Amino acid sequence: MVMSTPSVSAANQSLLGNGSGVVSPSPIPPGGSATTASVNSASEMEHTVSMTLFFVLAVLGLCILVIHLLIKLKLTYLPESIAVVFVGALIGLLLQLIGNWRKEEAFPPMIFFLVILPPIIFESGYNLHKGNFFHNIGSILLFAILGTVISAAVIGAGVYLVGVAGITYQLTLVESFAFGSLISAVDPVATLAIFQAIKVDPILYMLVFGESILNDAVSIVLMTTVIQVKPEDGGLHALGLAVLNFFKTFLCSAGIGTVFALASALLLKWVDLRKTPSLEVGIMLIFSYAPYCLAEGLHMSGIMAILFAGIVMSHYTHRNLSPVTQITVQHTFRTMAFLAETLVFAYLGLAIFSFSHLLQPSLVIWCIALCLLGRAFNIFPLSFCLNYFRQHKITLKNQLIMWFSGLRGAIAFALAIHLDVRGETRQILVTTTLVIVLFTILVLGGSTMPLMKCLERRPAWMQTYYYYNDPAAGSSRSRRRRRRAREKQEVTLSKTQMGAAMDSEQYSEFAESEVELSGGGPGVPGVPVGPGGHKLQGFIRLDLRYLMPFFTRTFTHKEVTEGRRMMTTLTDKWYQEVRSTPAGEGGDPDDEEDDEDIDEEASHAETSLTAAQQ
Amino acid sequence: MVMSTPSVSAANQSLLGNGSGVVSPSPIPPGGSATTASVNSASEMEHTVSMTLFFVLAVLGLCILVIHLLIKLKLTYLPESIAVVFVGALIGLLLQLIGNWRKEEAFPPMIFFLVILPPIIFESGYNLHKGNFFHNIGSILLFAILGTVISAAVIGAGVYLVGVAGITYQLTLVESFAFGSLISAVDPVATLAIFQAIKVDPILYMLVFGESILNDAVSIVLMTTVIQVKPEDGGLHALGLAVLNFFKTFLCSAGIGTVFALASALLLKWVDLRKTPSLEVGIMLIFSYAPYCLAEGLHMSGIMAILFAGIVMSHYTHRNLSPVTQITVQHTFRTMAFLAETLVFAYLGLAIFSFSHLLQPSLVIWCIALCLLGRAFNIFPLSFCLNYFRQHKITLKNQLIMWFSGLRGAIAFALAIHLDVRGETRQILVTTTLVIVLFTILVLGGSTMPLMKCLERRPAWMQTYYYYNDPAAGSSRSRRRRRRAREKQEVTLSKTQMGAAMDSEQYSEFAESEVELSGGGPGVPGVPVGPGGHKLQGFIRLDLRYLMPFFTRTFTHKEVTEGRRMMTTLTDKWYQEVRSTPAGEGGDPDDEEDDEDIDEEASHAETSLTAAQQ
Repeated sequence: MVMSTPSVSAANQSLLGNGSGVVSPSPIPPGGSATTASVNSASEMEHTVSMTLFFVLAVLGLCILVIHLLIKLKLTYLPESIAVVFVGALIGLLLQLIGNWRKEEAFPPMIFFLVILPPIIFESGYNLHKGNFFHNIGSILLFAILGTVISAAVIGAGVYLVGVAGITYQLTLVESFAFGSLISAVDPVATLAIFQAIKVDPILYMLVFGESILNDAVSIVLMTTVIQVKPEDGGLHALGLAVLNFFKTFLCSAGIGTVFALASALLLKWVDLRKTPSLEVGIMLIFSYAPYCLAEGLHMSGIMAILFAGIVMSHYTHRNLSPVTQITVQHTFRTMAFLAETLVFAYLGLAIFSFSHLLQPSLVIWCIALCLLGRAFNIFPLSFCLNYFRQHKITLKNQLIMWFSGLRGAIAFALAIHLDVRGETRQILVTTTLVIVLFTILVLGGSTMPLMKCLERRPAWMQTYYYYNDPAAGSSRSRRRRRRAREKQEVTLSKTQMGAAMDSEQYSEFAESEVELSGGGPGVPGVPVGPGGHKLQGFIRLDLRYLMPFFTRTFTHKEVTEGRRMMTTLTDKWYQEVRSTPAGEGGDPDDEEDDEDIDEEASHAETSLTAAQQ
Repeated sequence: MVMSTPSVSAANQSLLGNGSGVVSPSPIPPGGSATTASVNSASEMEHTVSMTLFFVLAVLGLCILVIHLLIKLKLTYLPESIAVVFVGALIGLLLQLIGNWRKEEAFPPMIFFLVILPPIIFESGYNLHKGNFFHNIGSILLFAILGTVISAAVIGAGVYLVGVAGITYQLTLVESFAFGSLISAVDPVATLAIFQAIKVDPILYMLVFGESILNDAVSIVLMTTVIQVKPEDGGLHALGLAVLNFFKTFLCSAGIGTVFALASALLLKWVDLRKTPSLEVGIMLIFSYAPYCLAEGLHMSGIMAILFAGIVMSHYTHRNLSPVTQITVQHTFRTMAFLAETLVFAYLGLAIFSFSHLLQPSLVIWCIALCLLGRAFNIFPLSFCLNYFRQHKITLKNQLIMWFSGLRGAIAFALAIHLDVRGETRQILVTTTLVIVLFTILVLGGSTMPLMKCLERRPAWMQTYYYYNDPAAGSSRSRRRRRRAREKQEVTLSKTQMGAAMDSEQYSEFAESEVELSGGGPGVPGVPVGPGGHKLQGFIRLDLRYLMPFFTRTFTHKEVTEGRRMMTTLTDKWYQEVRSTPAGEGGDPDDEEDDEDIDEEASHAETSLTAAQQ
């Protein structure tokens, strides 16, 4: 991300800048001294861009420190996104007071779509490799595609109708549905932080996790499709064309992403790059970004392509990597996504004071109501339908939580900024989106906890319904285990801590607590089957029998040992590089005195590590 | 790098593009349908940029596979840079034959300086944390600063004089010295690959390693200084101004880099981000790039700043990191630098066929001669002077090797492309640089090995001189060890393999084979003292006594254990994710059968890893 954040604003300058920002070929005078002029004009621009980049980096650094403070002070009820928005707002206010802040200096759309968005979407897909995403693929797709379309349609139609009725500011039909689409992008971060915090049942967790991940991409494709509709073509024809276009884009893009991901899996299966991590990491970076570029180049949806690339790569390619590359890639992706998202939230905060807002209170209120209504029309009917087919039913309580946790976040706001509509309308929509995002995060996010506690003390009829429909809840063992886990783990809404926790066993235990591993066995881990060990079916079966062996490599005993040795070497290296004290806590390091102790400890460590290798 | 490479060409389009490339605010017609037009023009550009990015990624991917093939086929005598140039040339030739390659589509200067160059320079600085750089800081600085200035002056004056004499194409005084400066940038990659391959004595290795790292930055600052000189100010005044400017830029930039690096060390010492790797990695990325932006923004040299940031961060900050972040950061930096450099070399290859060359054979031949002469005036007199002060003398043989290994590489070529001079002269200088780079890599690089073997069978007088001046050579133990190491390790010119090898103990053994650790002890490792354990002096002493304890944190026993546990967890996670077979080599994975074996092995591994923790 170190390179990408900068280039954001680098191009920011050049893309948004007036004509003078463009590096023009210098005039060619005969003298040698004339070179100076052109150097100066080009370099002057470089200096400005550099300072912008420095500002961006400084803001990011500040946000990181604030987030750390939140974690340190255990202010974990406050989501990080809110803290970052506050930091951004504070900086925006300060700059406003100083008065040299240029208004509307947004990310240029191209940089936003090419640099900021891809890591966020890819990472959310790549994070899937734990848990049982594929087991619930049907339900997830239904919520993500049909659910988002329902939500977009409800909000779009509602906004258009209240406009036509003269109750609020009037949007055109296309604008209404474009806005409906973008505001239907649910933010996986906030939702999942809450879900993890309140320890919902893992299947539900995966349903909403999967939904909220796919949902962003669906929402973006939907918005792009809607904005390209020409209303003069006539209603039904245009609608038909839009639907066709939507599915064509969806399928082709997902196909591109999947093909690239499978190609990367086969490549890393048959070409052994494990001894040269920089080549391996390089290939991973190239294959993660290439589908995005190709899909965009072919007028498809890069977001959809990179999302599917992320999902499939985490499922197959990830298993073919050396341990060092696994760690590097995972942390690099996560950091890039974190920085990109922090940037968007900080910009959201800056926008509160620096953007020239046009607030339409009635529109905002109607939109919030429509958002809730749209999500209700998404969750409840679809859950009702799904419960006919699902073994593991979605209880009413869980439906309520799902409905309530439909927070809006960075993606919706960023899409609103880059929505290409008339000046005044754009301002109104950005302001409306900003308020909705802040409202949902603060009010919905803030009241989820109380709601949960309230539902915990649920009335008898609900209790019965719950136990009747949840086969896992019947087992007293798993109930006990869940309660214990809930007591053990502190509630946290910190995404960063969540990310770190996902690396520990704690999370895996949580994700798999009700889903026993069987069939595949440890040889093909992470591929769960349904509770109760019922027969494998559909994709899971296909995956386990044919796809997994075809796309992932079988490590030989020697290779596993080598991988482990590599890690041991790196741990040793770390140990040798850090200054450590055997007992004293932060005391004055007297090197001479500590020498022997450390020597002893080092040799001890060596012995035990050698033992570990055997 | 996944984000940076793309943005290169993203901005490529926009920066180099004609006026139409700039996203202009769309006209605001009253209808909703009008949005379509502006969407299309902006998105059309995005599609083109995306395809360019895809092309760049595809070329990079191809280069990675070719490099892997080189390593696999043990064609290690062929430097990777040459292979990449060949790939680039082949692609250039193909595109030329197809005929739709737009000529002169160079990296725009701003993107080159803001995105491609920083990771290359930072990484070379960050790689320093092994070995005894600071022990030889005096000699290194002399070679890097004075040596590069000498080389630039000799080449610049020579080129100017042969031009004035009418022997070759005539350059202006400023152009001559600018060219002299840029062609004085020695490529550390090729040089070091050879040095590692032929196992020179470690002090010499570090001398040239340090020199070639600092040398790039000096060369860039020198070129920038020269190009800003106004000859009409009068000779001596201009010269004085240039010298002043050079030192001001050098010191201020280095200061900025150092301050940022020390700040990052203190920050990571006192703020415990070790439990949240994404924050830790984020801080590292921000602090590595911020000095570059600030220095450029303040009209200083970003390259110099980022180089010093890299050196100081590897010396202090690196020791305050958690093991996971150490691995992630190191591999991310290395991969980014690798991709950036591969991109430049591939572009060099593409340029062979796509650039409209202007070859001046006499100029090329003179330049090659002057390069060799310039480096001779750098190495031999300075070594002579240094030998008066050094305990560990630089032998004549080693001086010859140093002189011979002054290859030119990616930096020189990239600087030539971005040299802002008149059209025809630029073409001539790019062509000349291209030929010099290819010549030095192919001829000098190719004949270093034979030269080494020839020097091995050195005449008696040289042998005497060698033993007389090299105290370490006298010890039969170290001589035996060196010979053994030489026999054991295969000769490789592969930079990638070298990078991987640097992580293993093999390299550390090599780097410290003649420099015994003492004084600091394992508590402050990696800080060697001179051979023979003579008294610590100067910076090393200061560093060991005060700086190191001040800027690096003392890990408590618990923290060390935690760091190790973190690594163990990650190793276990890797183990659980890969499909492994206990004995069969790539056989058909029969999961059911393997279950128990793997279980057994896993539990064994767990036991031994637990043992390691105690």
